[in-house]
Amino acid sequence: MRIDIITVVPGLLEGPFAHSILKRAEEKGIAKVRVHNLRAYASGKQKQVDDYAFGGGAGMVLMVEPIVKCITALQAERIYDEIIYMSPDGKTFDQNMANELSLKGNIMILCGHYKGVDERVRQKWITREISIGDYVLSGGELAAAVVTDAIIRLIPGVLNDETSALTDSFQDGLLAPPVYTRPAEYDGMKVPDVLLSGHEAKIEAWRFEASVRRTKERRPDLLEGKDF
Amino acid sequence: MRIDIITVVPGLLEGPFAHSILKRAEEKGIAKVRVHNLRAYASGKQKQVDDYAFGGGAGMVLMVEPIVKCITALQAERIYDEIIYMSPDGKTFDQNMANELSLKGNIMILCGHYKGVDERVRQKWITREISIGDYVLSGGELAAAVVTDAIIRLIPGVLNDETSALTDSFQDGLLAPPVYTRPAEYDGMKVPDVLLSGHEAKIEAWRFEASVRRTKERRPDLLEGKDF
Repeated sequence: MRIDIITVVPGLLEGPFAHSILKRAEEKGIAKVRVHNLRAYASGKQKQVDDYAFGGGAGMVLMVEPIVKCITALQAERIYDEIIYMSPDGKTFDQNMANELSLKGNIMILCGHYKGVDERVRQKWITREISIGDYVLSGGELAAAVVTDAIIRLIPGVLNDETSALTDSFQDGLLAPPVYTRPAEYDGMKVPDVLLSGHEAKIEAWRFEASVRRTKERRPDLLEGKDF
Repeated sequence: MRIDIITVVPGLLEGPFAHSILKRAEEKGIAKVRVHNLRAYASGKQKQVDDYAFGGGAGMVLMVEPIVKCITALQAERIYDEIIYMSPDGKTFDQNMANELSLKGNIMILCGHYKGVDERVRQKWITREISIGDYVLSGGELAAAVVTDAIIRLIPGVLNDETSALTDSFQDGLLAPPVYTRPAEYDGMKVPDVLLSGHEAKIEAWRFEASVRRTKERRPDLLEGKDF
């Protein structure tokens, strides 16, 4: 899989892709993430990429032309399955969408910044608009990093243990059960006995019950239509 | 406002806080973000911060002791309003929560990594658990960066134009209207005439209608109980 991210603040994305699982995915040759500076596609001496909004009001708007130039340049090199725009009014990202996107080949992600991008880009070039939640960020960069991380960790071979992602929250429609590690007692707080019992079937039953209980308490909406 | 972030992968957070509005907020003295490497609070030669989960299974768990040491060290220097744990089973972050948190003084954010943190940390030290959405990331770092960005941009003086955040999606319970900038025509696609009219009242009316229409189409759930 290859993900190309278009941004006016490439520096924001320096950390996330140079560490942890994304770095490992890159080293293993499983996933490539490339960040493109929109300014490189701007024309004129000023390398202008944004301008005031028509109709007035606060906040700058990213211009059509440099974005289209950048998209076109990337499309000349490969075919993209999706050109995604990160925006709070997009479709809300969730684990199902992460699973679906993890099966794609090439994805382009355009990050808005300031007040957003010129609407004409969204109408003609964008194939999918994604929001990571009902809140506003100063740009789409962190949102793009979130989507990239959520997708890439699902590709087989990226996590060290294949079964790890399968026991995560949401994959089975339940929140994950509590986890404990050594020491067995800390400051008077003990690990539940069953987890120390070595009795695999009992441990599994405890974890399933704890998952259901936690989901009922915290996210009953996830259980609607299910029979636990 | 001051935000202290505790993580085992500090490198993941290098970019987000060195650029854009977070850098500006720091330079203006409005907000301070400090990243703490959990490993610095580990004991023993190995500087061990994680261990296998009791009861078996894939994925490592962050240990209680180094986390408590780090929290205690920070608490010795100042009083914290919240000690937040980023977790997919936390309360879902939204713009209301961002507004509320932007009024706090000192916040600590603990990032899980791998399979999560020992449950006892959550029971005794954490005051609030936040999820940025229904998906799983390889760690809480990007989630912490998202929350930090969403909060800090709301503090007066951080954005260049005070009114800018007020016209964002969600602040008035509506999605933002489309935005356009020069040129007025690109590749046959024109900017709506009204935005070029200079007629302020008409522009405002168009934007409000466009906001309501977009919200109805994309997020009718936001309009429940409202009369538009």
